[in-house]
Amino acid sequence: MSAAPLRIIGIDPGSQITGFGILDTDGRSSVHVHSGCIRLPTGDFPQRLGVIFRELDAIIATHQPAVMAIEQAFLARNAAVALKLGQARGAAICAAVNRGLDVSEYAPRLIKQAVVGSGSAVKEQVQHMVMIMLALTRRPAADEADALAAALCHAHIGSSLGRLPQGFQRRRRR
Amino acid sequence: MSAAPLRIIGIDPGSQITGFGILDTDGRSSVHVHSGCIRLPTGDFPQRLGVIFRELDAIIATHQPAVMAIEQAFLARNAAVALKLGQARGAAICAAVNRGLDVSEYAPRLIKQAVVGSGSAVKEQVQHMVMIMLALTRRPAADEADALAAALCHAHIGSSLGRLPQGFQRRRRR
Repeated sequence: MSAAPLRIIGIDPGSQITGFGILDTDGRSSVHVHSGCIRLPTGDFPQRLGVIFRELDAIIATHQPAVMAIEQAFLARNAAVALKLGQARGAAICAAVNRGLDVSEYAPRLIKQAVVGSGSAVKEQVQHMVMIMLALTRRPAADEADALAAALCHAHIGSSLGRLPQGFQRRRRR
Repeated sequence: MSAAPLRIIGIDPGSQITGFGILDTDGRSSVHVHSGCIRLPTGDFPQRLGVIFRELDAIIATHQPAVMAIEQAFLARNAAVALKLGQARGAAICAAVNRGLDVSEYAPRLIKQAVVGSGSAVKEQVQHMVMIMLALTRRPAADEADALAAALCHAHIGSSLGRLPQGFQRRRRR
């Protein structure tokens, strides 16, 4: 990786587990920096949202990513599920915007396409390809893999959508 | 109001307008402190969530309420609406939890019951009664009135649910 890399945090927010994954990219190759899962305590929902916000805030403060990549929310089976998911997403996005990060959303099919080559890939394929592409020594948990996949999607196709800085876009066109 | 009052911020979060209302209460009477509406810019949704978070964060920092009261989310007509509403709620709740406030949620019917005396009151009745109860010199906007109504609900019936500090509960029982 020759130029100063772009650091991306991908997230997969949920009301029980929120996955996160940070990588550096120069637009061609990406290097794993840090990833994991924030497991939320049971009980009081506002406090759980506070945990998502504070944990991500601390991770962003430590690793200083420039941008957050997040899967566009799937349309949940029902309004109650969508409401819970929405609140978790709101907490995660606030943690990013509050630290000045840009937030890019990608359709689930686009993320799978970017990582596995097929928009209809299953979870296990995403976990496997994320492990290969980032040379991880262990298989990432499902939510962690989804977060890293969102970050990889931004790294690999963000440039073609004009979402990477000019330098990255020019370099990819050579 | 003889004892040191409890300061409550009520909010009515939405993806276009978020109402807020702050009052002081001793458990029997309540005094209006500040209220209004945060009108969100159009466009990029993550940035709009950031506006909710930052504006409420600044309001909380200035007025130092001890607790946030919020209407339990109604079950939206469809999942897409619920998702947007959920994200706005998540942003507002994060602003409170991040500043150490407790968050109390109340069912819409309970809030109307506490303010108007009927769980099936319409918006105009809530606006009217909030204006009377807090001796406002102008009619509050609908979202502002709903926010103040949530705060009034916490002030008036929070004690009976054990949500006000001991001092307030004892005083009300005399």
